[in-house]
Amino acid sequence: MENFIAYNPTKLHFGSGVINNLGKAGKEYGERVLLVYGKGSVLRNGSYDQTKGQLEKIHAEIFEFSGIKPNPVIDDVDAAVRFGLSEKIDYIVAVGGGSVIDSAKIISVCIAERCKGWDVMKNKVSIQSSVPMIAVLTLAATGTEMNPVSVLQNNRTREKIGFSHPSMFPRHSFLDPTYTRTVPANYTAYGIVDLIAHALENFFGYGEASLSDRFVEAIIKEAFDCGPQLMKNLSDYDLRARVMWAATNALNGLTGYGRSSGDWGVHAIGHILSFLYDTPHGATLSIAYPAWLKHLKSRIPDRIRKLGEHLLDEPDVEKVIQQVENFFRSLNSPVRLQEIGINADKKMVILELMNTNKVTGQHHRLDDSDRSIILDWMFS
Amino acid sequence: MENFIAYNPTKLHFGSGVINNLGKAGKEYGERVLLVYGKGSVLRNGSYDQTKGQLEKIHAEIFEFSGIKPNPVIDDVDAAVRFGLSEKIDYIVAVGGGSVIDSAKIISVCIAERCKGWDVMKNKVSIQSSVPMIAVLTLAATGTEMNPVSVLQNNRTREKIGFSHPSMFPRHSFLDPTYTRTVPANYTAYGIVDLIAHALENFFGYGEASLSDRFVEAIIKEAFDCGPQLMKNLSDYDLRARVMWAATNALNGLTGYGRSSGDWGVHAIGHILSFLYDTPHGATLSIAYPAWLKHLKSRIPDRIRKLGEHLLDEPDVEKVIQQVENFFRSLNSPVRLQEIGINADKKMVILELMNTNKVTGQHHRLDDSDRSIILDWMFS
Repeated sequence: MENFIAYNPTKLHFGSGVINNLGKAGKEYGERVLLVYGKGSVLRNGSYDQTKGQLEKIHAEIFEFSGIKPNPVIDDVDAAVRFGLSEKIDYIVAVGGGSVIDSAKIISVCIAERCKGWDVMKNKVSIQSSVPMIAVLTLAATGTEMNPVSVLQNNRTREKIGFSHPSMFPRHSFLDPTYTRTVPANYTAYGIVDLIAHALENFFGYGEASLSDRFVEAIIKEAFDCGPQLMKNLSDYDLRARVMWAATNALNGLTGYGRSSGDWGVHAIGHILSFLYDTPHGATLSIAYPAWLKHLKSRIPDRIRKLGEHLLDEPDVEKVIQQVENFFRSLNSPVRLQEIGINADKKMVILELMNTNKVTGQHHRLDDSDRSIILDWMFS
Repeated sequence: MENFIAYNPTKLHFGSGVINNLGKAGKEYGERVLLVYGKGSVLRNGSYDQTKGQLEKIHAEIFEFSGIKPNPVIDDVDAAVRFGLSEKIDYIVAVGGGSVIDSAKIISVCIAERCKGWDVMKNKVSIQSSVPMIAVLTLAATGTEMNPVSVLQNNRTREKIGFSHPSMFPRHSFLDPTYTRTVPANYTAYGIVDLIAHALENFFGYGEASLSDRFVEAIIKEAFDCGPQLMKNLSDYDLRARVMWAATNALNGLTGYGRSSGDWGVHAIGHILSFLYDTPHGATLSIAYPAWLKHLKSRIPDRIRKLGEHLLDEPDVEKVIQQVENFFRSLNSPVRLQEIGINADKKMVILELMNTNKVTGQHHRLDDSDRSIILDWMFS
């Protein structure tokens, strides 16, 4: 086991009606609040109205910044920072999924540090503080509600990258599974894929960490169990709750303690697809993970076998990979690029950007040849 | 799944040499530090010297309070509070196992609130603040290093009870498995029993929480796997590390989220034995858990069966209970009262105190008759 620090200061409120504690939490931070969200869905699922109601109850001065995109871009972050600075906001409330909360994390740093978003993402800012940020989650997927990570896209530099800093933990997160009951089937499936992929990225990371492996298995088993049930009954509260809590735990640190790093090679591949084709994050992962496993299987047969034995009662590496792919397929999440309208004639475009960005894992390094073969599997 | 709040602000530093970060952590809190410890072992395992070295490096003014007992008593807490108040200490560093850290938690509240320890334990104080407390753990067992719980004994009221409050999380905890390499076989075994018992108390608590159940299973599997290996090789760093991290996770909140409560009936029974006979906490649990299961098996056969199927590949309830008992026995932890020199002629003494204290679980309520039968199993 490697040395590590376990630290997660987010106060996470989980369950039906927990939004009623948001006002009390916000009041601690001041009076002027920047309310950040995307578009449509939060207006329909009740989260926007209920959040605003809470803020009105404490007589907060509310400044709204909306229109964060599903694959969020740095320009929106910078625009929100300018707005937040001009209105001298005291804290941020982010209502939405990963895109909104990831954006709010960088906004919170940039307002405190008076800097540009991309300089934060590229680790050029010595971060001393951040404006308090409260998250109201409306999509179970990325785990951003209880971690210090943000993933954003820069259309000028043609990059989509992640950045993490302890100042970026949400101070409070409100997770009411009710808000996720109206998430459509495809995004529900992408969320399940995403949480499984997060657990796997840690499982395939660097360093032996026995208990963290067991937590990975627990989380994936939970997803294997309740995911398909949820797909058949999208409005079931308890199944929504189980997926939501599993997604949080898949990326709140728990599955990584004792390892030097996760791998994150599959995510790096996925980000290229999202950048080029605006593909939803989870859809990129259900395509990329089976392909990555097929290529890596000769390097890490024991690791894949362990996963198969513990999760699927299946020791055969080929069959394990097939079952993971079949599971993603059973959720109706795509497993080949053609299924999302990307045909093999795009191979060179994708590969070029993968190579320019030096797409790789932290543990399992990928070179130009690896990327080409993995891409072939994604078209296979 | 029930509503819950997931919140654990302790910053936990894990691994060999992490004590080197203690000075930096302490410096944040002031200059005058109350150094709390027990006796013997911390002087021998290096933790006391290294902690003191760290505090000297930051030129802290050190005030020492030693002699905390293995089954800690409230009088020592009050004495430490008087000493800490007279020396105007800014923060506390506790070096030791559960007894020392549990004591330090109540000391930290009482110094801030200028109150008596037992009033805190009996929930008679409206706690607004606490003096910062840093823990240096030297025994893998109770999980106190990452939770807000304290268990203390009052010899006047003849009680040994637990109390929990968010202000009682250690601010930092330093877990260097090296310090536990010299823990003798019996206390090593008690620690393994204790961590398993914590996971079980949550598993048998109130409310369905699927992922928390899986985390229980992950932690117990880890203990089943590395515990016996450690007993054969007490100085193995990696096995010490695995047991230590499993013990932390068994009671840092993880296994309880989504339930209304754990059960804690077995702990309540164990505390009676510790009170009467100064029996080490873990030893009381390896005796009481099998007995509790034998009596409760007709009420909760499905729950025991689930545990057996997932942990032991064993669906037969009787056999599951036997295997749990056999596991404790294999560690050389006692499974009957006679093994610790308490014979059946003591039954009425024990039962009387159990009844006076109304020993029960939070979920599975116990009455006088239940207690008598469980006690019979402990002598059987």
